[in-house]
Amino acid sequence: MTKVMIVYFSKTGNTAKLAEAIAVGASEAGAEVVVKPVSAAKPTEMLDYDVVIAGSPTYYGHSAGVLRTFFDESVSIHGRLNGKIGGAFATSAYKSGGNETTILDILHAFMIHGMVVKGQHSKDHYGPTSINTPNEPDIKDAKKYGAMLVNLAERLSNV
Amino acid sequence: MTKVMIVYFSKTGNTAKLAEAIAVGASEAGAEVVVKPVSAAKPTEMLDYDVVIAGSPTYYGHSAGVLRTFFDESVSIHGRLNGKIGGAFATSAYKSGGNETTILDILHAFMIHGMVVKGQHSKDHYGPTSINTPNEPDIKDAKKYGAMLVNLAERLSNV
Amino acid sequence: MTKVMIVYFSKTGNTAKLAEAIAVGASEAGAEVVVKPVSAAKPTEMLDYDVVIAGSPTYYGHSAGVLRTFFDESVSIHGRLNGKIGGAFATSAYKSGGNETTILDILHAFMIHGMVVKGQHSKDHYGPTSINTPNEPDIKDAKKYGAMLVNLAERLSNV
Amino acid sequence: MTKVMIVYFSKTGNTAKLAEAIAVGASEAGAEVVVKPVSAAKPTEMLDYDVVIAGSPTYYGHSAGVLRTFFDESVSIHGRLNGKIGGAFATSAYKSGGNETTILDILHAFMIHGMVVKGQHSKDHYGPTSINTPNEPDIKDAKKYGAMLVNLAERLSNV
Repeated sequence: MTKVMIVYFSKTGNTAKLAEAIAVGASEAGAEVVVKPVSAAKPTEMLDYDVVIAGSPTYYGHSAGVLRTFFDESVSIHGRLNGKIGGAFATSAYKSGGNETTILDILHAFMIHGMVVKGQHSKDHYGPTSINTPNEPDIKDAKKYGAMLVNLAERLSNV
Repeated sequence: MTKVMIVYFSKTGNTAKLAEAIAVGASEAGAEVVVKPVSAAKPTEMLDYDVVIAGSPTYYGHSAGVLRTFFDESVSIHGRLNGKIGGAFATSAYKSGGNETTILDILHAFMIHGMVVKGQHSKDHYGPTSINTPNEPDIKDAKKYGAMLVNLAERLSNV
Repeated sequence: MTKVMIVYFSKTGNTAKLAEAIAVGASEAGAEVVVKPVSAAKPTEMLDYDVVIAGSPTYYGHSAGVLRTFFDESVSIHGRLNGKIGGAFATSAYKSGGNETTILDILHAFMIHGMVVKGQHSKDHYGPTSINTPNEPDIKDAKKYGAMLVNLAERLSNV
Repeated sequence: MTKVMIVYFSKTGNTAKLAEAIAVGASEAGAEVVVKPVSAAKPTEMLDYDVVIAGSPTYYGHSAGVLRTFFDESVSIHGRLNGKIGGAFATSAYKSGGNETTILDILHAFMIHGMVVKGQHSKDHYGPTSINTPNEPDIKDAKKYGAMLVNLAERLSNV
């Protein structure tokens, strides 16, 4: 069974809603899913999962400092996440308010850990986003993204 | 009088509409403005302007090849654009469909020419965008962006 | 047998050298490898390969216009590359001269096609690079990158 | 007299060395310069300066969490930095180890504050970097960058 960890920072609850939607999608695709705010997560926990998906509101074009600090501290397990799958999601206040640069900075962190990342050929290409509160299409897309990464994990682990 | 060159690629007309709106804003702010499709522009023409603003639809996360080729060829005037002002705009088909990475790749080109770039503390932070056809707020924001860069040029030239 | 296509643009021969090294690594890892300059490649050819790796010199912070045009034209097969593996490499004239932004723009294109991308937990994290002519460590790293992507392809195809 | 604030995070001392070199260059160009580690700086202090230059080691492709937190907290003065000048510098362990994405994330923060940014047409285009300890050319380039931003500030303030 594919194990998925979703870690996020959320102040207004918008990013938490996307996290929940991704979790529903991953769960419906057959995975065991844990969702937790970054304040309750330790970087070493990532070792126990096949897929790690991280999300943040967009703060000045990038993920929140508290999420970056989580990645900074993940240096203690550098090299041991190699080959796992990473995903990202973000929320912002404007249509071109930094969502893409935020998602990409999270994916960069996963890539530097040697992790596997996948885009989407429709909708939000780099990962799920919302402008302010996620609407119905945002929630639907987030579910699909969760399921997509679980399917990728199954292909990678030769299930 | 500040001289502004707006160069763009547009297939559907959406990017051309944003170009026109930026031109209106720049013109209303007192500048002399030339707007032309990249097919009718030569990189050396940039030498004659104080501000160069480039726009493109988002093709696979970045500006169209034809606009990149325009920048590739600008190597013939490398160093001579140093200190001029650059701006960028983009259109895409989705809310997180690559608009930001497209705008940023244009701004990178200007920065590598030693040019000056400015963000916006509200709305589309890196430069004007639209999702498909520009709507009224998009047009309004594009006008403001054009005016903002003209004002910056005036401050820089000690007018 | 994993099939790998390496497509590149090279003016000085530096990027071609990295392309050859990646090809050697992929071949030694057991793949069938085709290496071709972008002028001799058609986007539809990507359909025949499990792994596509693209490289370019850094021109104003991004890949050459001719390579971007290749990606622009790949819209004709949009959706059909979903799930394949993509990789990227770049050369530049300076240590922080745009290599990273160049590699990332290629990876963005692959991600927008729904392709799978993988970073490296040591050395050049986003993909192989060189500053001017590739030196011995650059060649060695490029070989490893080619082999790494072939191994990933084998895991994905449940060989 | 142009006032410059240099704020940085440094664990090994490499980033601190670049900070000092930029300060020397800015000072020699006639500015009043303050250099301080981010732990001793408050975001509101940026209000008192014409130029703010921020630097960080590259942690997983981006600036350290502690520096991002500094920017997160700068939301309290959002809009009030509009028109000031921003600059960035970074250090990393590898030649393509994330220096560019780190510098760019800092510049994005300044752009989202509406600040003015300038590239360099030679050497490290987006801002000064070093791979591990800064060498002599790195120090020289950092000094030039500091002086360049002071000169830009003087042009902008119509001195």
